[in-house]
Amino acid sequence: MSQVAFRTRDELPMICGDFCGKDIVSLDQFAVQDIEYLLPVIQQMKKMAVNHEPSHVLAGHLVSLLFFEPSSRTFSSFSAAIKRLGGQTIEIQNPEIVSSVSKGETFEDTIRVFEAYSSAIVLRHPVPGAALKAARAAEYVPVVNAGDGNNEHPTQTLLDLYTLYETFGRLDHLTGLLAGDVFNSRTLHSLMRGLSLFRYNTVYLLSPQQLRLSRADLAHFAERGLRIIEIDSEKDIPRECHFWYWTRIQKERFSSLETYEEIVAKNFTVTPALLDAYASKDMILMDPLPRVGTIDPAVDDDERAVYLRSQVRNGLYTRMALLALILGKA
Amino acid sequence: MSQVAFRTRDELPMICGDFCGKDIVSLDQFAVQDIEYLLPVIQQMKKMAVNHEPSHVLAGHLVSLLFFEPSSRTFSSFSAAIKRLGGQTIEIQNPEIVSSVSKGETFEDTIRVFEAYSSAIVLRHPVPGAALKAARAAEYVPVVNAGDGNNEHPTQTLLDLYTLYETFGRLDHLTGLLAGDVFNSRTLHSLMRGLSLFRYNTVYLLSPQQLRLSRADLAHFAERGLRIIEIDSEKDIPRECHFWYWTRIQKERFSSLETYEEIVAKNFTVTPALLDAYASKDMILMDPLPRVGTIDPAVDDDERAVYLRSQVRNGLYTRMALLALILGKA
Amino acid sequence: MSQVAFRTRDELPMICGDFCGKDIVSLDQFAVQDIEYLLPVIQQMKKMAVNHEPSHVLAGHLVSLLFFEPSSRTFSSFSAAIKRLGGQTIEIQNPEIVSSVSKGETFEDTIRVFEAYSSAIVLRHPVPGAALKAARAAEYVPVVNAGDGNNEHPTQTLLDLYTLYETFGRLDHLTGLLAGDVFNSRTLHSLMRGLSLFRYNTVYLLSPQQLRLSRADLAHFAERGLRIIEIDSEKDIPRECHFWYWTRIQKERFSSLETYEEIVAKNFTVTPALLDAYASKDMILMDPLPRVGTIDPAVDDDERAVYLRSQVRNGLYTRMALLALILGKA
Repeated sequence: MSQVAFRTRDELPMICGDFCGKDIVSLDQFAVQDIEYLLPVIQQMKKMAVNHEPSHVLAGHLVSLLFFEPSSRTFSSFSAAIKRLGGQTIEIQNPEIVSSVSKGETFEDTIRVFEAYSSAIVLRHPVPGAALKAARAAEYVPVVNAGDGNNEHPTQTLLDLYTLYETFGRLDHLTGLLAGDVFNSRTLHSLMRGLSLFRYNTVYLLSPQQLRLSRADLAHFAERGLRIIEIDSEKDIPRECHFWYWTRIQKERFSSLETYEEIVAKNFTVTPALLDAYASKDMILMDPLPRVGTIDPAVDDDERAVYLRSQVRNGLYTRMALLALILGKA
Repeated sequence: MSQVAFRTRDELPMICGDFCGKDIVSLDQFAVQDIEYLLPVIQQMKKMAVNHEPSHVLAGHLVSLLFFEPSSRTFSSFSAAIKRLGGQTIEIQNPEIVSSVSKGETFEDTIRVFEAYSSAIVLRHPVPGAALKAARAAEYVPVVNAGDGNNEHPTQTLLDLYTLYETFGRLDHLTGLLAGDVFNSRTLHSLMRGLSLFRYNTVYLLSPQQLRLSRADLAHFAERGLRIIEIDSEKDIPRECHFWYWTRIQKERFSSLETYEEIVAKNFTVTPALLDAYASKDMILMDPLPRVGTIDPAVDDDERAVYLRSQVRNGLYTRMALLALILGKA
Repeated sequence: MSQVAFRTRDELPMICGDFCGKDIVSLDQFAVQDIEYLLPVIQQMKKMAVNHEPSHVLAGHLVSLLFFEPSSRTFSSFSAAIKRLGGQTIEIQNPEIVSSVSKGETFEDTIRVFEAYSSAIVLRHPVPGAALKAARAAEYVPVVNAGDGNNEHPTQTLLDLYTLYETFGRLDHLTGLLAGDVFNSRTLHSLMRGLSLFRYNTVYLLSPQQLRLSRADLAHFAERGLRIIEIDSEKDIPRECHFWYWTRIQKERFSSLETYEEIVAKNFTVTPALLDAYASKDMILMDPLPRVGTIDPAVDDDERAVYLRSQVRNGLYTRMALLALILGKA
């Protein structure tokens, strides 16, 4: 939804306690208070969904899901969120194939056509900045970013924060291990930004040598108040971590298959033995999925493994809460 | 829905004041009275939708959307129309890929299978005449033509007529400018047929030399009572036009890319300057979309530009009204 | 839904009068009593659907349709069944294209992600055994097999049995003709297994010489109590058959196009003349569809031809009944 301030200052409006009608493009729109406001709403959605309570919160509302790139998990999670709230969806996957996009229509026109039919637009797009562009194009309805390239995927971070919150009852004084492609991972960077909003959080970073956080990013997060410690080996994982957050090495980032395979070969995989050796009994093991070589399936039955249980479910509840709030229904 | 008269006379049944159960294949099924009956129903749907009133008009009804060719706008518009009325959809895009069509099933069998699951079938197909073929194949449920090649797309014309009606309060004594591919455009031909049903309408035609209306079509429309005036240049656009209707040059119609590009290069584009010079302050600027080189985005903020506002929205309300009527619910 | 007994005995649990929460993977899970319990529930669903009664049986429930291979008929039938009962769907066609599957996610992880969003999963997959694999992967929700390669497609057989039941009022003392690809057809094999559960049933088999039932299968079905008689020519079709069940020669089964075409050329097609010569006036003519060269369209208007009428509709009602039962709502 275009707003005057938005158009003139070329910036995203902060939530500032008022979700209603807001575009959700970036995690940077959220102040601590906004996240604290959101968390109990997610909790409430969880209760409702777990009890299979039919909801009419979004009755009479249609939400367009425009997915310009494949993502069955995020797609299904948003679709389920809307339907669980009694709303309906217009679902377009690969619009460049099925639509006027192939006839040369501009992205802005496509967005404006879909806003004519819907109460909100959820957009997934491979190009960084596409969500902001869509938010500017839409005149009347809010746009929710469901991932725009390696730029932002705010609902992923919000669900991660909620998962930590429901487990530990707080979002400060937490210590975590972030592992995998620390250099590239949108998910990890965004989680670090989220954690840096709260006080006294510490993250240990563990990655292949070539995939360490850049010096600039390191400085940036440190400046925001997050304590960051890089470690070189699994042996350095401190027992007091509240959570481990594992991410896959993304094949699509490498121009050379050899480099990719070389790195993957040296990458760390979570095994029952690794958990036994370095994890506390109350920690949780997270992964944004898909896991590809990151976590041994033998770990799945461990109660601390939340990636295929509460973490993926919390994505549903987080999206329910956010959609209800921006459509003025929660 | 096959009807005895239909099968034996090989003709389409007129609406004749009774939409219930009728196939909607061609604009020629509509008499003046039918359009006059439809217009206030569209108006009523618009009110309901604008107020986000939940509707149960189509509760318990499933409508199949069979799109044998890509058309995200028409697809979404029908899908939204059904869902806004509390109905549900079965959505099949590209049935030749996902279905028994690839196993050699006949078109008629496909239609009959889908009618077994649904209250109505909305069909989009690249082959002219496909909608009539489907209407004949379906034994029990009505078929709505959502575009069959360059043949017919009746809901497009109905929404265009409604847009004129809600702006000017009438469908007679109107003067319009039709521009672009006047030779090929299904949309323009159909609109001329619609306008010719009402009295004292005049259209000015403006097109590249190679894309003028054929002599046969010119005679045909004139015979139906429409006053047609061909002009050669923007300079001849009369100031009293109530509407301008712009259509794109359809690349897919040309065997030679050079011919296409040559024509496009000479084609007329609506700019703020053109509007200033030749348009009245109460006219409206229409386009069936996608616009590709037809209208300069600088025009979008002009209040007279309705193509991305009321025109596209009226498509939704028109389809709501029509579906409610043929399913006996309005 | 994984169950302890299931995991340890590596077998499928029988329905045993309790559908609630059960995976439906194979016809072998059904005892005579289970089918007898199911039939009147299907009958009840049929009544409701025919009367367009809105239903809220599955209100608040989301069912995932995961179709790893194209099948518009089965897809639409399940989708319609869920929506007719007031439930909603998450629909994924070709997940290998639109999903994390393309990023290397395991099949089990995909299933577990979708169970997080839904009350049940309906799976179509080209690989035999995929449904069992999915049922084992899903921890919390039931999995329904909508066809796994040439292995099983239990709802097809249940709808066939229901079609016989509603026509003849019983599932025993029936005589049928099974024709076409008797060697390969999953549908025919499964129907024979279904018929063998009931007493005094007889089937005549008619197929091209190369596509006869294997000796092993012949012995297997005979052992289960089904009387089987192979015939060589249409001339041997006995007039007392209650039903003819025709199946297409499946092109995709043949490595050589010539062999396929040679067999098809010699294959039997149902024509009005054939019906006149060998069919009783109370029999029914069935086909699982798509029919490709199996039944002359001239037969379609014959009242005995149920394939495009009650047979395809019964698929909808059967799936409604089954989903309501496994979700504990009927």
